[in-house]
Amino acid sequence: MEKRVRVLIDCKDAKGLVYKISKVFYDRDLNIDNNREFVDKEHGRFFMRTVITGLFNTKELEDELKSVVPEDAHIKVIEPKDKKIILMATKESHALGDILIRHEDSELGAEIACVIANHDTLKSLVSKFDIPFFHIPADNMSREEHEKNVMKLIDNFEFDYIVLAKYMRILTPTFVKAYNKKIINIHHSFLPAFIGANPYKQAFERGVKIIGATAHYVTDDLDEGPIIAQDVIPVNHRLTWRDMQRAGRDGEKIVLSRALSLVLNDRVFVNGNKTIIF
Amino acid sequence: MEKRVRVLIDCKDAKGLVYKISKVFYDRDLNIDNNREFVDKEHGRFFMRTVITGLFNTKELEDELKSVVPEDAHIKVIEPKDKKIILMATKESHALGDILIRHEDSELGAEIACVIANHDTLKSLVSKFDIPFFHIPADNMSREEHEKNVMKLIDNFEFDYIVLAKYMRILTPTFVKAYNKKIINIHHSFLPAFIGANPYKQAFERGVKIIGATAHYVTDDLDEGPIIAQDVIPVNHRLTWRDMQRAGRDGEKIVLSRALSLVLNDRVFVNGNKTIIF
Amino acid sequence: MEKRVRVLIDCKDAKGLVYKISKVFYDRDLNIDNNREFVDKEHGRFFMRTVITGLFNTKELEDELKSVVPEDAHIKVIEPKDKKIILMATKESHALGDILIRHEDSELGAEIACVIANHDTLKSLVSKFDIPFFHIPADNMSREEHEKNVMKLIDNFEFDYIVLAKYMRILTPTFVKAYNKKIINIHHSFLPAFIGANPYKQAFERGVKIIGATAHYVTDDLDEGPIIAQDVIPVNHRLTWRDMQRAGRDGEKIVLSRALSLVLNDRVFVNGNKTIIF
Amino acid sequence: MEKRVRVLIDCKDAKGLVYKISKVFYDRDLNIDNNREFVDKEHGRFFMRTVITGLFNTKELEDELKSVVPEDAHIKVIEPKDKKIILMATKESHALGDILIRHEDSELGAEIACVIANHDTLKSLVSKFDIPFFHIPADNMSREEHEKNVMKLIDNFEFDYIVLAKYMRILTPTFVKAYNKKIINIHHSFLPAFIGANPYKQAFERGVKIIGATAHYVTDDLDEGPIIAQDVIPVNHRLTWRDMQRAGRDGEKIVLSRALSLVLNDRVFVNGNKTIIF
Repeated sequence: MEKRVRVLIDCKDAKGLVYKISKVFYDRDLNIDNNREFVDKEHGRFFMRTVITGLFNTKELEDELKSVVPEDAHIKVIEPKDKKIILMATKESHALGDILIRHEDSELGAEIACVIANHDTLKSLVSKFDIPFFHIPADNMSREEHEKNVMKLIDNFEFDYIVLAKYMRILTPTFVKAYNKKIINIHHSFLPAFIGANPYKQAFERGVKIIGATAHYVTDDLDEGPIIAQDVIPVNHRLTWRDMQRAGRDGEKIVLSRALSLVLNDRVFVNGNKTIIF
Repeated sequence: MEKRVRVLIDCKDAKGLVYKISKVFYDRDLNIDNNREFVDKEHGRFFMRTVITGLFNTKELEDELKSVVPEDAHIKVIEPKDKKIILMATKESHALGDILIRHEDSELGAEIACVIANHDTLKSLVSKFDIPFFHIPADNMSREEHEKNVMKLIDNFEFDYIVLAKYMRILTPTFVKAYNKKIINIHHSFLPAFIGANPYKQAFERGVKIIGATAHYVTDDLDEGPIIAQDVIPVNHRLTWRDMQRAGRDGEKIVLSRALSLVLNDRVFVNGNKTIIF
Repeated sequence: MEKRVRVLIDCKDAKGLVYKISKVFYDRDLNIDNNREFVDKEHGRFFMRTVITGLFNTKELEDELKSVVPEDAHIKVIEPKDKKIILMATKESHALGDILIRHEDSELGAEIACVIANHDTLKSLVSKFDIPFFHIPADNMSREEHEKNVMKLIDNFEFDYIVLAKYMRILTPTFVKAYNKKIINIHHSFLPAFIGANPYKQAFERGVKIIGATAHYVTDDLDEGPIIAQDVIPVNHRLTWRDMQRAGRDGEKIVLSRALSLVLNDRVFVNGNKTIIF
Repeated sequence: MEKRVRVLIDCKDAKGLVYKISKVFYDRDLNIDNNREFVDKEHGRFFMRTVITGLFNTKELEDELKSVVPEDAHIKVIEPKDKKIILMATKESHALGDILIRHEDSELGAEIACVIANHDTLKSLVSKFDIPFFHIPADNMSREEHEKNVMKLIDNFEFDYIVLAKYMRILTPTFVKAYNKKIINIHHSFLPAFIGANPYKQAFERGVKIIGATAHYVTDDLDEGPIIAQDVIPVNHRLTWRDMQRAGRDGEKIVLSRALSLVLNDRVFVNGNKTIIF
């Protein structure tokens, strides 16, 4: 039966890669529906995302592709189907709610395994949508203890990504390492401006005329991971920092959902501390 | 007890209005928390929105203000409290869902009296939020008959505004007249471009590089009412019209919610076929 | 000697095009520096822009490419060098001045053959830059007579594009046909909104909250040609239409220069009444 | 003869200020053409910009206003006329050129006293416009020595503002202090992101998806002065840092010109380290 897959290739750059890869598709009589490449010349790396349709054995295709590209290549042949995500949140409902509505509408492109929060504020909202909600309190315990509880819970689920929908706690390197390149966060500022706590207050105090939001992969360095998407909102002297916070929420939820859509559609390559978006 | 109210004045322009109005406040020892005026010189009209705090009798204040401004003046002294809205929708959940999440979060600034839809698709979503949902089908009947049923239902509720959250039917002049300046719509294009049916398809066919959304008051002329808010989203040749439609939803819901917030906070004056936004 | 060229291919879509074209490059040991393709599935057309470097004979390369693509293919192998443009203007200096400054800075990527205007207002500005300025008055003559004079002048110059930098006259079909797909215009609205005369006044009267500018190829239908670039500027009720006009100028000049840069770098394919921008 | 002036008031907040000030205008039979106020509640400060027309003696009006506002008030009654500016630049022509074109078009609203540059690159451009150009080289001397030469030159001119149109040298506190609140700079990043040298390279290395430009008053702290205007431009992984630099130029010049227009029209109040823009 005819299949439609996304082929993702990430390898050292070399002459003739487009030719060699497209030859594999051509020889097998596969159709290229969509194709994008990029060469990072600074680091000599080649990235390609191709959508192909046709009759083929996925394993065989992968093996044949491997035989024509440099040895260091990462090759993925992915059948488009809903990925699984775990949502983490704290008290605010806008980013989480936006994802829940998209999910309800079958627009999200992901199954939500569960929502984990360090407060129980959002339990009532999440429960409406028949999605498991777990309250893992963080009171009176060390960051490590709390995360241990969270990780024990996470380990019960299969998932592709953990999405921090305004999860307002800093993650330890242990946690980040355990789910390397699988954690996506929304930071409520136009990074790298206003790293850290209360960026809206920082923005207010600096007197900026534009505020922003940044969705990024989480790495060890706080708010320093590869940026997936950013957007901005104009502000003026009449806004208090709470007004900015309120105005900023729309940007946060839209940017997070946009980043999530890119990731779920396998449109994002991580390239060092940057992303390539196809 | 000290009160905080919004004073809205809309009248023929005349010399000394700011002086005369601020004198009323000053003589009564009221505090101006916030003040904005605008004079439409083309039509000689004066608009003012002032937030005042202090001890006063609302009726007396209104009467005194009336005595210092031109006779044609519309004066409103409004105590900030949640207004009541009726939502109308069809099948799409994004705009409606966005409002429901804001409502659940007590961020909306309005009570939702009910949701009325010409399909029952959204019943399940709305019911989660314990908000009355009414399905008024339009099949096999004239536009007039259908609207009669809708109006009969509406008449059971007290409300300040009717919000069309992607209500995909054209309203008759009778309906529009019945709720004059009380109906707010989101149109899925950057008006006045692409008036009418399927603006995304029109946008795709015209090959525009930016699409938009427009929130406006509904008047007799389809998509011609006073514009409250607009926003845009960049697109390119790679998007099909369905991709544009999908991308456009974010703009639609954000623009509608922004317009709704302006209206609910009494920040919008209708001035002929335009709006003044304070 | 090694060369660097842009290869532009536009043809009926067919299986294996990427493979066949990249094979040509591979067999000749040419390097792909940059590659972008797009398939318009609605019309079954394939577009490709590839930058290659290496040792080759241009004519031979073209012939070989021709032999592997469908017969209807347009193939161009272009050595990047400054193109030649003719500027047409009326009285306003912002769009023209922006191009002159870029030219002076060697940032434009084009030689300016001359400036033609129907008024002599801009003579003093253009002359500063040692660029020929021709005043072809339009007073007391028919549109046809005037254009005949303009065309007679144009025929003295070699050029790739005619750029209408706020040339405020409507062109006849004869003129447009004579320079088919070679005329680029900046229209001072967010097309298709406000086609025709004085779009800022139209925008003011409609009460829009955003104004825009559109750069497009000129075709027979006024303001209906393929759009190359668009941008927008937020406005509010405090702006008169003259304020909008003033504010809009920045958008106009930036959009025109951006479109011009895309065209001069051979990044624009015309596809029916749309453009594909690589 | 009837006059039109801008009245700027900046003082401690107090009850009845709008009333008292508008009473002064009313008693003298002056017309308010335009009026905007703002109260910074955090710091208890009142700001007002009113445009009035009528028959009056400026000195008398100022004195009377003084008598009704708190003692610390700064009151300015300004007749709208072209201010004088000194431009400083280095080698890049885009920001300077944009100002020169606006000046040539009488759109700038300022006379240009002269251009001072630490290189002679721009001499040819500036000379076209019959504006004095002074090359004050900085080679082989200390920052202090160079600035002394610049200041000696500046002292020959009457001016209201010094505009740094991509002047790529850091100013000493001595210089900044000498022209307190009179120096306007364009920084080529979205401050406070990427303070200091080569922000485009920093932006490239951080992998941001949006770059920006910031116009601000210069204070002792590098790139930390009150922000007047900001804007952003989307970028992606395909841009090198030189591409970003090129793309960013449009933002820089537009933001600087917009800030300059605000300042020249007396629309900017400096409030601590922030601005209020009317």
